[in-house]
Amino acid sequence: MLIIFTGNGKGKTTAALGQAIRALGQGKRVLMIQFIKGGWKTGEEKFFKRFKIKGVRFKLIKAGRGFVKILGDKLPFEEHKKAAQKALALAKKSVKSKKWDLIILDEINVAVSLKLIKVGNVLKILKSAPPDIILTGRGAPQSFIKLANLVTEMKEIKHPFKKGGLAKKGIEY
Amino acid sequence: MLIIFTGNGKGKTTAALGQAIRALGQGKRVLMIQFIKGGWKTGEEKFFKRFKIKGVRFKLIKAGRGFVKILGDKLPFEEHKKAAQKALALAKKSVKSKKWDLIILDEINVAVSLKLIKVGNVLKILKSAPPDIILTGRGAPQSFIKLANLVTEMKEIKHPFKKGGLAKKGIEY
Repeated sequence: MLIIFTGNGKGKTTAALGQAIRALGQGKRVLMIQFIKGGWKTGEEKFFKRFKIKGVRFKLIKAGRGFVKILGDKLPFEEHKKAAQKALALAKKSVKSKKWDLIILDEINVAVSLKLIKVGNVLKILKSAPPDIILTGRGAPQSFIKLANLVTEMKEIKHPFKKGGLAKKGIEY
Repeated sequence: MLIIFTGNGKGKTTAALGQAIRALGQGKRVLMIQFIKGGWKTGEEKFFKRFKIKGVRFKLIKAGRGFVKILGDKLPFEEHKKAAQKALALAKKSVKSKKWDLIILDEINVAVSLKLIKVGNVLKILKSAPPDIILTGRGAPQSFIKLANLVTEMKEIKHPFKKGGLAKKGIEY
């Protein structure tokens, strides 16, 4: 099953994370590869570090190099590209390994939009009879949506940052 | 902070669950009260039962009596109403107790739409200087949206059930 969480609203990564918890609860093995975020110590990362959960089969790989061209990013574009391509190679290998029941490719849609990785190379993986896959990130290409079983657009109705609020610990990260 | 996940698409409850994990990772205390679901043994419930996580401050209360008027529900409407009102009383008490940093009122929007509980009674709680609150469920009333800091509409683009698929373990529940 291929699931996509896209759109400009909040809740895409957290929905994927919620799916991960649900799958883990059912005894599945879950891998999450983050394509873009990577600079911040996020709550989800801390959760699995803080509570050393015995027997949980979850792995989070922060492959991305942080935000691209926003929030003071000064990393050369080529470095972001290299990181995203490494993440994609890892995704491909992980699919082949059959070690995971659910693989979350977090913010991969954004990596595609930014031209860090090629649509065609992602499609190859999606068509290779993979396990359950979740793709997140705004701007999912039509070719992904066509292939997917379940697609939700997270549409922003209200966002606190627009009112000048600051990212809140435990909520935004 | 008041967050709302509404709309007809998938990912509302899972996004709230993801927020819970993020908050727990940051050392917060999280309570989730389910207003509608309740009949199924869901993955999120199993997660916290399967992995007895030391030190995690999370509580899930399945207050609802299952789906209302769908999927073969034969429970009298009054029973659903009683259950939802009990859930709301519990929410009120939990807010007052100051024991929780984040309270998720899952599917509460639906409980309001179905007239199991009154909008005004929910608003009273939301206006009582509560901790962080997340409301989920399709059809959030405008009065909730007006009050909220962050609102995302989960919009259905594609849904596997519509193709005659069955709910998949570890994904849908």
